[in-house]
Amino acid sequence: MLKLDFHPAGRHFLQIPGPSPVPDRILRAMSLPTIDHRGPEFGALGLQVLSGIQKIFKTTQPVVIYPASGTGAWEAALTNTLSPGDTVLMYETGHFATLWKKMAEALGLKPEFIGLPGIEGWRRGVQADAIEARLRADTGHVIKAVCVVHNETSTGVTSNIAAVRKAIDAAGHPALLLVDTISGLAAADYRHDEWGVDVTVSGSQKGLMLPPGISFNAVSKKAIEASKTAKLPRAFWGWTEIIEMNKTGYWPYTPNTNLLYGLNEALDMILEEGLDNVFARHDRLSAACRLAVQAWGLEVQCADPTVYSPILTGVMTPEGFDADAIRKIIYERFNMSLGTGLGKMKGRMFRIGHLGEANDLSLMATLAGCEMGLKIAGVKLAGSGVGAAMDFLAEQKIPPLKIAA
Amino acid sequence: MLKLDFHPAGRHFLQIPGPSPVPDRILRAMSLPTIDHRGPEFGALGLQVLSGIQKIFKTTQPVVIYPASGTGAWEAALTNTLSPGDTVLMYETGHFATLWKKMAEALGLKPEFIGLPGIEGWRRGVQADAIEARLRADTGHVIKAVCVVHNETSTGVTSNIAAVRKAIDAAGHPALLLVDTISGLAAADYRHDEWGVDVTVSGSQKGLMLPPGISFNAVSKKAIEASKTAKLPRAFWGWTEIIEMNKTGYWPYTPNTNLLYGLNEALDMILEEGLDNVFARHDRLSAACRLAVQAWGLEVQCADPTVYSPILTGVMTPEGFDADAIRKIIYERFNMSLGTGLGKMKGRMFRIGHLGEANDLSLMATLAGCEMGLKIAGVKLAGSGVGAAMDFLAEQKIPPLKIAA
Amino acid sequence: MLKLDFHPAGRHFLQIPGPSPVPDRILRAMSLPTIDHRGPEFGALGLQVLSGIQKIFKTTQPVVIYPASGTGAWEAALTNTLSPGDTVLMYETGHFATLWKKMAEALGLKPEFIGLPGIEGWRRGVQADAIEARLRADTGHVIKAVCVVHNETSTGVTSNIAAVRKAIDAAGHPALLLVDTISGLAAADYRHDEWGVDVTVSGSQKGLMLPPGISFNAVSKKAIEASKTAKLPRAFWGWTEIIEMNKTGYWPYTPNTNLLYGLNEALDMILEEGLDNVFARHDRLSAACRLAVQAWGLEVQCADPTVYSPILTGVMTPEGFDADAIRKIIYERFNMSLGTGLGKMKGRMFRIGHLGEANDLSLMATLAGCEMGLKIAGVKLAGSGVGAAMDFLAEQKIPPLKIAA
Amino acid sequence: MLKLDFHPAGRHFLQIPGPSPVPDRILRAMSLPTIDHRGPEFGALGLQVLSGIQKIFKTTQPVVIYPASGTGAWEAALTNTLSPGDTVLMYETGHFATLWKKMAEALGLKPEFIGLPGIEGWRRGVQADAIEARLRADTGHVIKAVCVVHNETSTGVTSNIAAVRKAIDAAGHPALLLVDTISGLAAADYRHDEWGVDVTVSGSQKGLMLPPGISFNAVSKKAIEASKTAKLPRAFWGWTEIIEMNKTGYWPYTPNTNLLYGLNEALDMILEEGLDNVFARHDRLSAACRLAVQAWGLEVQCADPTVYSPILTGVMTPEGFDADAIRKIIYERFNMSLGTGLGKMKGRMFRIGHLGEANDLSLMATLAGCEMGLKIAGVKLAGSGVGAAMDFLAEQKIPPLKIAA
Repeated sequence: MLKLDFHPAGRHFLQIPGPSPVPDRILRAMSLPTIDHRGPEFGALGLQVLSGIQKIFKTTQPVVIYPASGTGAWEAALTNTLSPGDTVLMYETGHFATLWKKMAEALGLKPEFIGLPGIEGWRRGVQADAIEARLRADTGHVIKAVCVVHNETSTGVTSNIAAVRKAIDAAGHPALLLVDTISGLAAADYRHDEWGVDVTVSGSQKGLMLPPGISFNAVSKKAIEASKTAKLPRAFWGWTEIIEMNKTGYWPYTPNTNLLYGLNEALDMILEEGLDNVFARHDRLSAACRLAVQAWGLEVQCADPTVYSPILTGVMTPEGFDADAIRKIIYERFNMSLGTGLGKMKGRMFRIGHLGEANDLSLMATLAGCEMGLKIAGVKLAGSGVGAAMDFLAEQKIPPLKIAA
Repeated sequence: MLKLDFHPAGRHFLQIPGPSPVPDRILRAMSLPTIDHRGPEFGALGLQVLSGIQKIFKTTQPVVIYPASGTGAWEAALTNTLSPGDTVLMYETGHFATLWKKMAEALGLKPEFIGLPGIEGWRRGVQADAIEARLRADTGHVIKAVCVVHNETSTGVTSNIAAVRKAIDAAGHPALLLVDTISGLAAADYRHDEWGVDVTVSGSQKGLMLPPGISFNAVSKKAIEASKTAKLPRAFWGWTEIIEMNKTGYWPYTPNTNLLYGLNEALDMILEEGLDNVFARHDRLSAACRLAVQAWGLEVQCADPTVYSPILTGVMTPEGFDADAIRKIIYERFNMSLGTGLGKMKGRMFRIGHLGEANDLSLMATLAGCEMGLKIAGVKLAGSGVGAAMDFLAEQKIPPLKIAA
Repeated sequence: MLKLDFHPAGRHFLQIPGPSPVPDRILRAMSLPTIDHRGPEFGALGLQVLSGIQKIFKTTQPVVIYPASGTGAWEAALTNTLSPGDTVLMYETGHFATLWKKMAEALGLKPEFIGLPGIEGWRRGVQADAIEARLRADTGHVIKAVCVVHNETSTGVTSNIAAVRKAIDAAGHPALLLVDTISGLAAADYRHDEWGVDVTVSGSQKGLMLPPGISFNAVSKKAIEASKTAKLPRAFWGWTEIIEMNKTGYWPYTPNTNLLYGLNEALDMILEEGLDNVFARHDRLSAACRLAVQAWGLEVQCADPTVYSPILTGVMTPEGFDADAIRKIIYERFNMSLGTGLGKMKGRMFRIGHLGEANDLSLMATLAGCEMGLKIAGVKLAGSGVGAAMDFLAEQKIPPLKIAA
Repeated sequence: MLKLDFHPAGRHFLQIPGPSPVPDRILRAMSLPTIDHRGPEFGALGLQVLSGIQKIFKTTQPVVIYPASGTGAWEAALTNTLSPGDTVLMYETGHFATLWKKMAEALGLKPEFIGLPGIEGWRRGVQADAIEARLRADTGHVIKAVCVVHNETSTGVTSNIAAVRKAIDAAGHPALLLVDTISGLAAADYRHDEWGVDVTVSGSQKGLMLPPGISFNAVSKKAIEASKTAKLPRAFWGWTEIIEMNKTGYWPYTPNTNLLYGLNEALDMILEEGLDNVFARHDRLSAACRLAVQAWGLEVQCADPTVYSPILTGVMTPEGFDADAIRKIIYERFNMSLGTGLGKMKGRMFRIGHLGEANDLSLMATLAGCEMGLKIAGVKLAGSGVGAAMDFLAEQKIPPLKIAA
């Protein structure tokens, strides 16, 4: 049989924008013995994770947990709220927004896909005014939902969701607001209730630091109301029965127990650190990363500084350099995985993940690997990104490490 | 936070018919570091598990692996092959057959639910002749699929799937054959190709000894053909793109890597022991268990000896005894979980799981816990089931333990 | 390389009297990352385990923790308190008492070895009156220490240490009292302070449920005083520097960090259950085990009911049956390890461990494996030991399992 | 109870010169179930680790494995070969050489301690000619053994053992050669047989990447011969019985099974990578580290380039800067542990470990943490050590990462 211990001496640096490195604590929690999902302890576990995850979404409304990957939670958001042939307004921020739109088509919806032209749209966030304009024009309220991606994993752009909410309200339009923050949750600030989101979609393998296999729908009262008349067929993804059984901490079908152990531990870690501290850490690391890219004389994929992603940084490679060839050098020489350019950006950029289980020194290792790899690949760098990042990080005032004892 | 180490001194005996106890080897494998699901090692892992799982299903055709619970694989089997309003012939063998039928309704299909009346149908297997008769009557071929459960987890009955195939053929009917062997796979003999099954649905948390979170569709050429015209909306569950990407060992969306590590280890364990030895072990343990039940003077739920389940044994409790009260005594006094009676059998039976990570002595512990618990509950037993089981097991000729060295 | 996953499907039953099965909780704790043994967190860990272990020994005096096996702690007890050529009175209770005596000789001490003749001495506990008589005769106080084994692992006899203390006091003799409770600690009641023991020797792999590799000396003021003039050379085992550095939670040389994590978890588990509950559990399991042996018509090795061991039961095999051949059958057929007969008892008995991570059902599995194995070996049994044990256990009133939530 | 998950978000960097970071693979191996140390599988495990460890020491002679820390193996080397009052020639290379000398005194030996004066001796290796001169003068052969440290963990100096052997031979002196390579083994080249070492002492928690708790004596025929007449009392440490029982893969007393699992895995990892590749990796990382120190304008503790340690680098801090205050900043701000200055070097230097589970990027993280910490502490650096290390590493030609598949 194949040996799964793939990597050689020294730790592998998994610096893709998710799955992010899973902390040992979470892997250990996941190795607790599987228990009876109908037994008395399970209810206690269920109630605890359901309550904890609400804090992460900043909601007091139900969060549905699926024993499935994030793509499934996209589907759940659509099938629970919409009917065959419904028009949905979707905004193209990048590859994942595009995939979500394709899914909507496959499910028999009519997505209207708007956005800035060419790769320009992949370098900026959602333009809320464009949404507002389109909704104002939709006087017949044909559009049933507005779908946007909060943190676009393919580009490193974190759109302003509050602005989208404001746009919908300004247009006086009744469309639901569905938001994908699969890669944003627990890394970038997110406020399901305050921002008036109807369905928030998320997953486990990014800011929550879990392996893939759990996904979420946080839902509003309006979304639940919509689900009562929505006609897309659904069973596995149906909210009603899940939300009902969740009241006692159980699920209508077999939940993935061991990943829930991991989720429980992740919630413990994140709430212990404090959500604000988690966000500040991601902000600091992403700022240092962008300074490095700029010092190298390369371009950050995100062209609008107000929507830089705290989770990942897209790095555009100069003309004549295949980004994937550079990634291969870095992988084979420095045992580090970086994200590839997706869709329109294939070969033109690579993505550095700095999310979840990440700190100043893991970022420095990452940047050093990039800098050396770029040099080996023959890219002429304007200066040392590593040096720039160190200058910045050494200046930051952060409280000293608190020992647990 | 809640402490997850729920159980007191000494090992908990998880003797429900799934999730079954997860072997340490598999928990350890699941704690390997999460890797890039687009990186070079992942493809090697993917190809290996895809090839290994075919051996378990006894098929050379594609097996689709979902990062989702078994209920999802039920949905996948239906949505990939059928269109809204299609009639499906479903056979009531117990609670799970009933749930699958409800799902078919929820998805907009028209299930026709046949079976023996009352609890009688829950004590016997699928009556292939009834299926044949129904199909013969369907001269217009309105019925698009026949759906049966191989090992009915709610009753402990393992139906004869070859006979169902034969019935369909005898009727000369073109309906697809969809089979749920969620709890049967890798514990009871199963032959996807030889039995001419079109879609076999299974899951991870039973004979495969994994935690819940992975599920399967083994598919036939005919099923794939059907999927090209089937009109139920689908995206997450769609076979086409998955089967295409699987050719190189990858998946179109994020697979649940760490559970795949576990699957890889499970395949290694099962193929190392040998499928025939695995089946023989389950046969031996289930035979011993039934002898114990008979020695106690209680009734086995399955009333037809030709379809006894090797995976679990349903035990009917005498009049006047609530099966769940007995289960509670056993749980609180002996730290053992048994399966509850489901649906029509609520309170009238309990279920003993003897599947997956099980051997003679773990069964003896289980039976001793049941026997003592029944006595404490005040049930008058005809004799010692534990003694009967020991008499049987001590007689069995099995090869001595082979040391790995 | 050799595959370490030695055992086939289903759990191996490790029923030797130590190393006992290590609970998953402890294995998980041991997998925490190794930290700087001079860093700030280490001191917190050190102080906690040092304080916890005192509760287990029931002492307020220092407990020295060695990063070494139990045999080393035997040596430490002797070298810290005695000088070359010193006479020590040692009592033969079995194989381990004999090994300790050999060690004393190897270290240049003069052990005087007393006890009942033949195997009779291996079937009864320490005869305190014989010790008293010998000490009264030693008017010149040539004897510097009395060495006894509390729980003799080779026989299943737990001697009365309070009686030995009383004997020494009655004789008005200044000898130190050194006690080995390597296999007794945290399973049988033990009171270092109340019983006036000067050095108690113990280890990790028995009642503490850890893997081997940690051992202990609990020491009295009198023992520390003796160490100031004791002349046996010592360095690694020397108490003084260790006790001094332990004040801040550190050790003079590298402690075995990951086993200390395990110790911390073990202390947590044991103190959570409550020492008295732990002892009661061992008493119950050992009583059930002896009833089984008696029902089989076999003899328990321990011939004195007042000193039955709660940790293990020695089972004497009938004339004409090689105990090791029976053990081999049980190992190869039922995947269970039992303890061999040691020294004088080689081939004449086997030992059943029922200690540490043990409960009613794990004992029942064990007894069932013994009963079936004895039958397969051709031993004529008077009756069912399994039945006798079940009758006894089902009668016991113990509080219901408390769910952690 | 105290929570053992001490560290906050992101991985802790344990960059002390041992215990070194334990790879996940080894932690997982250590969590295999403890087995009967007298059972059939154990012998297979024992034979395998005993054979594997010989390859690491480059010897065909016995390697004694102790279930104890490295300090114990120091004691074993002395007590097995020497008699009370024996004179031993010991060479002062640093703090650990000094501790070994103190141990010799405590055991009743007469160490003669030679070396260069002041801290000069702590900045250079063993001067073989001084040893030769001393031995030539010892015409009466009063000196029974020469004791030297191969890799002095307190300074970062790796002495030339072949030269010491040559010196002894040149002097025609019969003294035994005892060498401590506790921190050198499996990181710096070491040749027990070729260099004619009589006893090599080592431990688990450095190049072998295990937690502390296992230690070694590799022994020569001459050493075994000496042990027959050596009169220091010994029992736990005695070679004879261990070597005898090792022939079948067992030990006379309880070995620490779970650490042996870890050792088995470590041997697998190291031999798979290839010892020469392991050494080359350590050489590369240490060279990069020294270039960084020099670029900072700081002094490497080791003043002789021919004996730089591949395992650790001692960094001397400028006048007016307390090295421990700098370490504290780095610990609290960057979650990285560095080694303190020991003995004569207290406060004047810190030690960077780059051994075992280490690669280019983990070194870069380490150096970045040092560079930023030094700046925060106010040390004026001549230039960027991180930049210098990157320049060097990017130039190295090493084969691309080999994927296991």
